[in-house]
Amino acid sequence: MNFGSDTTAPAHPAVLEALARANSGYQPSYGDDDIMARVRILLERIFETTDLDFWLVASGTAANALALSCFCPPTGSILCYREAHIEVDERGAPEFFTGGGKLQLLPGAGGKISVEVLANCLLDIDPGFVHQTPPSVLSLTNLTECGTRYGAGDLQALCLKARQAALTVHLDGARFGNAVAGGGTPPASMSWKAGVDVLTLGLTKTGAMGCEIILLFGKARAKFQELRVRAKRSGHMPAKMRYLAAQAEALLQDGLWLDLAAHANAMARKLAAEFTSVRYPLAYPVDGNEVFAKLAERDIGFLRQGGMQFYKWPGGSYRFVCSWATTEADIAAFRVAFHQPKPA
Amino acid sequence: MNFGSDTTAPAHPAVLEALARANSGYQPSYGDDDIMARVRILLERIFETTDLDFWLVASGTAANALALSCFCPPTGSILCYREAHIEVDERGAPEFFTGGGKLQLLPGAGGKISVEVLANCLLDIDPGFVHQTPPSVLSLTNLTECGTRYGAGDLQALCLKARQAALTVHLDGARFGNAVAGGGTPPASMSWKAGVDVLTLGLTKTGAMGCEIILLFGKARAKFQELRVRAKRSGHMPAKMRYLAAQAEALLQDGLWLDLAAHANAMARKLAAEFTSVRYPLAYPVDGNEVFAKLAERDIGFLRQGGMQFYKWPGGSYRFVCSWATTEADIAAFRVAFHQPKPA
Amino acid sequence: MNFGSDTTAPAHPAVLEALARANSGYQPSYGDDDIMARVRILLERIFETTDLDFWLVASGTAANALALSCFCPPTGSILCYREAHIEVDERGAPEFFTGGGKLQLLPGAGGKISVEVLANCLLDIDPGFVHQTPPSVLSLTNLTECGTRYGAGDLQALCLKARQAALTVHLDGARFGNAVAGGGTPPASMSWKAGVDVLTLGLTKTGAMGCEIILLFGKARAKFQELRVRAKRSGHMPAKMRYLAAQAEALLQDGLWLDLAAHANAMARKLAAEFTSVRYPLAYPVDGNEVFAKLAERDIGFLRQGGMQFYKWPGGSYRFVCSWATTEADIAAFRVAFHQPKPA
Amino acid sequence: MNFGSDTTAPAHPAVLEALARANSGYQPSYGDDDIMARVRILLERIFETTDLDFWLVASGTAANALALSCFCPPTGSILCYREAHIEVDERGAPEFFTGGGKLQLLPGAGGKISVEVLANCLLDIDPGFVHQTPPSVLSLTNLTECGTRYGAGDLQALCLKARQAALTVHLDGARFGNAVAGGGTPPASMSWKAGVDVLTLGLTKTGAMGCEIILLFGKARAKFQELRVRAKRSGHMPAKMRYLAAQAEALLQDGLWLDLAAHANAMARKLAAEFTSVRYPLAYPVDGNEVFAKLAERDIGFLRQGGMQFYKWPGGSYRFVCSWATTEADIAAFRVAFHQPKPA
Repeated sequence: MNFGSDTTAPAHPAVLEALARANSGYQPSYGDDDIMARVRILLERIFETTDLDFWLVASGTAANALALSCFCPPTGSILCYREAHIEVDERGAPEFFTGGGKLQLLPGAGGKISVEVLANCLLDIDPGFVHQTPPSVLSLTNLTECGTRYGAGDLQALCLKARQAALTVHLDGARFGNAVAGGGTPPASMSWKAGVDVLTLGLTKTGAMGCEIILLFGKARAKFQELRVRAKRSGHMPAKMRYLAAQAEALLQDGLWLDLAAHANAMARKLAAEFTSVRYPLAYPVDGNEVFAKLAERDIGFLRQGGMQFYKWPGGSYRFVCSWATTEADIAAFRVAFHQPKPA
Repeated sequence: MNFGSDTTAPAHPAVLEALARANSGYQPSYGDDDIMARVRILLERIFETTDLDFWLVASGTAANALALSCFCPPTGSILCYREAHIEVDERGAPEFFTGGGKLQLLPGAGGKISVEVLANCLLDIDPGFVHQTPPSVLSLTNLTECGTRYGAGDLQALCLKARQAALTVHLDGARFGNAVAGGGTPPASMSWKAGVDVLTLGLTKTGAMGCEIILLFGKARAKFQELRVRAKRSGHMPAKMRYLAAQAEALLQDGLWLDLAAHANAMARKLAAEFTSVRYPLAYPVDGNEVFAKLAERDIGFLRQGGMQFYKWPGGSYRFVCSWATTEADIAAFRVAFHQPKPA
Repeated sequence: MNFGSDTTAPAHPAVLEALARANSGYQPSYGDDDIMARVRILLERIFETTDLDFWLVASGTAANALALSCFCPPTGSILCYREAHIEVDERGAPEFFTGGGKLQLLPGAGGKISVEVLANCLLDIDPGFVHQTPPSVLSLTNLTECGTRYGAGDLQALCLKARQAALTVHLDGARFGNAVAGGGTPPASMSWKAGVDVLTLGLTKTGAMGCEIILLFGKARAKFQELRVRAKRSGHMPAKMRYLAAQAEALLQDGLWLDLAAHANAMARKLAAEFTSVRYPLAYPVDGNEVFAKLAERDIGFLRQGGMQFYKWPGGSYRFVCSWATTEADIAAFRVAFHQPKPA
Repeated sequence: MNFGSDTTAPAHPAVLEALARANSGYQPSYGDDDIMARVRILLERIFETTDLDFWLVASGTAANALALSCFCPPTGSILCYREAHIEVDERGAPEFFTGGGKLQLLPGAGGKISVEVLANCLLDIDPGFVHQTPPSVLSLTNLTECGTRYGAGDLQALCLKARQAALTVHLDGARFGNAVAGGGTPPASMSWKAGVDVLTLGLTKTGAMGCEIILLFGKARAKFQELRVRAKRSGHMPAKMRYLAAQAEALLQDGLWLDLAAHANAMARKLAAEFTSVRYPLAYPVDGNEVFAKLAERDIGFLRQGGMQFYKWPGGSYRFVCSWATTEADIAAFRVAFHQPKPA
């Protein structure tokens, strides 16, 4: 029973079928194919606007770093949560792509930056002072690194504050589907309507082989040509782009991405219930497809013996992730391993 | 009839079948999956050595730039042919990945650097002279940018000269399969046995969706961990690596990659024969799957009207590329369009 | 009365005299002049070893960034105090020179990193884990950013811990003279004998026009050619290097640098006494030439009216800096302004 | 007799006097001092406009690289002569400062790019084509690397062509004084009036210790804050900037820089006359302070024996440079060594 990460699951069958359909005849290279055109239409519908541009890449690190590099100059910095994926899991990709920009780390509870913390940090900034590095971008993550969810209101307040300081707002949406599915607020309200300028919408964890969408909204679209150039320059403009596009189409069509995310969320809630039913403490609220539990040492052993896979997490908890592929049987197997009679 | 590029063709059906097979159950992320292990065994067999390491990426630009960045420091330079793909088609990716290394351009006929030109260039180098940028790497391309082929003897002579000047030798093998299939010399003799330290072996043009192999041989393996780190940092370590591995396995197994390359080469020879049968001048010998013809203006029009797709090339010729997907019918259609009776 | 910074003072007259002496006849460019040779001899004597190499630059930011870039790869990171000069005052120079390396910030009291904090941070490092950025360098500052001083024992303990984790140790010695003069421990014991690999020894604040020495000790000397190359590449190998060398010679000769630093320290102690005589709280111990006082609002006004120049400092205190140019009269003027009768 | 380079000469006495005058009292750091304000007034007078901004640095490599980095993005390129100083003598500084921009080399006779060559190169540029790297900047050098001089008309024609292609024009004026003194055209006509956007005006070779001026004209001034930030970030904002400013003031005042350059040019003409008087071939016209002679092997020996210092130059000639410090006696000594009776 693999609760290690939503990236250890296979792709959803619909993705494979889409690839097979795409695999016929000649198509222009580098993103000029027919499927890309259809993906645009899907995105316009989902985000309720034609005022967007997008690019597809195969990894989340690439998506974040490319997005950030269009808005943070080498001499600027990016504000983010102190344990943000861009800080702790991308081996300096933002620094590489921006040409030496800095990350400035903000504290927060449950993975979230509060408006107060942001406001306080922005207070002393003097863009004319050449010795220090002023922020150019605010990068948020939703679902957060703790599996919690910013609501549309949270996002609006943070984006407003950022805009007042002339910052671009980036949203790392590696689990954006889970955030949307978990709250019932439409994608537009969870992104550009709240003030997000550039969204990296992950489909890999949702069910793709490897497909992430970088979305530029409104005035951020001025950077679209630069985004394409940076994608080319970093090896993220593969010749046969149609196969990235086919994955995106398969998942965006008919809301499949949200259905899969909702399933993963539901499984996580069931998993969480196994903990809470015995008053086991969870480290954070379960707003999406991740459960962080403060496991007792002996329970760790029992779970591992029962074949459960999961990771130790910074801060002392253990992370369990559900995906589109998690089944009721997986949850049942967990239940057995977790609640089995144990020697005193 | 699409002779525009071997990247406009779809993937070979065997690749899609392999993806479908790979799409079942959980697998470790980031290259620790079972298929990667099998790809290693295939590569060891094909290259007749266990003294190698490898990494898979989805684009040729990424493969070249990552390979070069492990061997050329920011303060160094890369010798290459003046129209090398790394110089004219990768939007500065080598400069980006190396952190500002330089390309130094060498002249040559038919896309090839001669030993004399290389020797002459290396003559004046003083690595202790801090003002100028000494070369750290020699980058060759085979098939060359002109569709010609370095033989094993050519490669040996160039690599020997490079080694004497303490240069690492990189081989851009975007069409390595075509070079091998075109000459009957085994892959090992066309790479490490000739003195190549790092090979980027392209499978995308051969028939993959998007899969290129970076191969480190012998002492170059000391850079393998750095290669992985740089791959991660540049977004070229996608979570679900198994799907890259599945493509590689499908093509490397049972020599499929060489069969497909041989087919493409054979089609190119037939296409070339259409030109030479009427004493039409070709710009370069046809050693692989590319034909460069010096088309008369009016023939260009006739071919385009006949539905032929092909590109104008620097230097005044026109390029026609065949792939695994090129059929006898395509050649026949070309024949009709090319030899049709034309108004005087 | 300028207590704003030791960089607002002029150069010591001996420096100007040395420049005038150097200004005669032809000299080889780029560091091959006679004076550089004499500076080496002075450094060998001062640091009690011939096992060193050095380079001269005109700014502290250049000195630190060049030093760090030789030891921290683009994929690595530098551990430093959370308010280190390299983090908050150099506009991302370390990130620029390293090609995108990261700074990892450590907490501490009074500007000092404790061995416990360092040890704790090093605990979880797995250099083989590609996703996170492991530290390559520990960067200390002495005098610290709070004007306090690491003793030789402190340095030894920190360097030992760093060495066990295979880190290079960099010491930012912008006020190294003040640290040495303040403690009576010889320069060698405050640097390489304690385990420092690379020292940036500042002379500008001590009394030069603009001259900082990058010193490589022991095995760090392997990077000397790279240091020169990086200096050239970043514009820090001016043609007429003799004038940098002349400044260094003037200050290093006969211990002038330490005499000037000792004077600045003595003036700071007198200034501090004005505060403590009336039980005014200082933010940090006065170990060198800087005094950090927690000024009451109305005293700020009185001091400014009295012509005193000084800066507000992060953390709520106010910084007063003495230099070689600070006179007893300056202190007396401060006394008058500070202790004058004030309206109730 | 040192004809090796104008950088082996000492500084002019007026420069030392200015430093001594500047060395009194406190001054704000980082360029906010009084002398900088006076340098601005001098520059406005010399260039006949107040529509300029400037920064001072201590080396020509820094000046060029900083200037270029404000106008060439990491994804762009710089057109320059194939043997331009920025290509062959700066160890990749432009690539470093731009974050991986490329240099594109243009051929030319006598160090000059012709309008035809430039026009031809610009013909095929498609800025929307992401695979290739379009030029962002045209960088010219005057005096050229061959000691020849572009006239105001040449510059106008080149700048016009560049502007039509939306390129910024940079002029590397390491020997701008010699170019101006050699032609009788005022500085404004040799720079912004001809269409130059950013000029790096070298004073080091003219007679400074180390001082180069980066001048932004007209709309290029929009980059002034970025220039200052990049200067800080690269260690080219030394604390005690007044000493750079003092050098500039000393040389710009009362036209001293042009008097010194005129003297160097006159000495070079006399030196050239020694060659031409015996019909010895010069490689290029002598438009400034450099003489390139095609020396016979045996004459090289005689000159070296006579104590003459000079350098072998690419292309087969030998370079002799005169400076403000070259005396009639130096020329006389050369005459003796060169024309002495030689064994048959």
